[in-house]
Amino acid sequence: MSEPDFPPRDPGPRPGGHRQARALATRSAILAAAAEEFATASYHEASLSRILERSKVTKGALYFHFVSKESIACAVVDEMEMLCRAMVDRCRGLGLDPLRTATQVVREMQDALDGPVLRAGQRLCSDGFTGPDRSGWPFRFWQEVFTALFVEAAAARLLVPRVEPASLARTVVDVSGGAFIASLAVSELSDLAQRVCENWELLLGAVADPAWLEGFRAEGGMGAVLGPHLGRGGWVAEA
Amino acid sequence: MSEPDFPPRDPGPRPGGHRQARALATRSAILAAAAEEFATASYHEASLSRILERSKVTKGALYFHFVSKESIACAVVDEMEMLCRAMVDRCRGLGLDPLRTATQVVREMQDALDGPVLRAGQRLCSDGFTGPDRSGWPFRFWQEVFTALFVEAAAARLLVPRVEPASLARTVVDVSGGAFIASLAVSELSDLAQRVCENWELLLGAVADPAWLEGFRAEGGMGAVLGPHLGRGGWVAEA
Repeated sequence: MSEPDFPPRDPGPRPGGHRQARALATRSAILAAAAEEFATASYHEASLSRILERSKVTKGALYFHFVSKESIACAVVDEMEMLCRAMVDRCRGLGLDPLRTATQVVREMQDALDGPVLRAGQRLCSDGFTGPDRSGWPFRFWQEVFTALFVEAAAARLLVPRVEPASLARTVVDVSGGAFIASLAVSELSDLAQRVCENWELLLGAVADPAWLEGFRAEGGMGAVLGPHLGRGGWVAEA
Repeated sequence: MSEPDFPPRDPGPRPGGHRQARALATRSAILAAAAEEFATASYHEASLSRILERSKVTKGALYFHFVSKESIACAVVDEMEMLCRAMVDRCRGLGLDPLRTATQVVREMQDALDGPVLRAGQRLCSDGFTGPDRSGWPFRFWQEVFTALFVEAAAARLLVPRVEPASLARTVVDVSGGAFIASLAVSELSDLAQRVCENWELLLGAVADPAWLEGFRAEGGMGAVLGPHLGRGGWVAEA
């Protein structure tokens, strides 16, 4: 029960380092295949045999690392969490003001949606299959990230005075999660970048200080931030 | 294959009208039980045996009306569609201006979420289990409804000039769908009315003509529109 996942339990002739590296490579191959599968199918539709096929690992190797479809899905959500945390750290490291940092997070989200991990994790959490703790994670995480950024923005007088940072962050969480499911349902995500662009133009127009807004618009606004994601027909066309 | 669902195929001694009424009552009992089940569980978790138990019909009667869990779920989405269409007709019949009509639709959505049909239908469509045609329906429907209302609002100069009605309708669809999944994930819908209230206050503040906004706020704004839904802890507390 308390035995850790690594090193793998099967003893072999190789030194521990090699065994561990091989096990990690197998686990990564399974997770990459699972992310592809959950990105293109709902949890309900996703199939373990297709994950096996994509990953080119044996059934035995898969069950060595994961006990069930649910445990694979949870590991994909863990991957998404690492990816999102790294994304926020990177955006904060750019030295931009808090509102521009927020728009950069939005850009990096679109970049990450070109890969399967974020698409898969977001679908899995929107489906709510893992219970409130895990499925609620992205909503709580982004609520915290955007509240912190908007508190800093308010302190720097980049927001108009009547805006409440936590409330604005909730609206950002709602409009972002909703854009994903609406775009998935009506266009298989091909109109997502356009929706995100229009949503942020509208929100920033409502809450940002007029002087900040003038500068941001002079740089090209959300259109410039999202750049290559706009007007190219989304990730489906790239596949 | 081309045989219609009604009248039921089993011949009986009763006159046709009675047979049909009994079949309709059975079908309604199954749908009411299914809505309860899909409102509280994901499609994946929902169980046919719990639907049978709740509906108090026999397994034979259930399979007489529906061939699968998916066909029951689709029928629940059909029920939601009828409910939403009736809701829009009723709100349009109140003789309010187009923006107040939109806020009244939002109020009636909250009223309807006290019952299971809309909660179930919205969850089923957010899960995307029925393929793009059926799962995309609510997003396309609300896009049409709000675009039409905002076109009328723009013509009546209730919106500030730079607002594009279809774009604003997309944002409304995104923020509404997202509020539902975020609230479901983090609070089992208990904070939904509060989220909806704040989202609409922010959006209307950004897009409505200042004179309209002043009048609307004098009436109490979205808080007055949503009235009893605010600050009562959501439908969970009512159950």
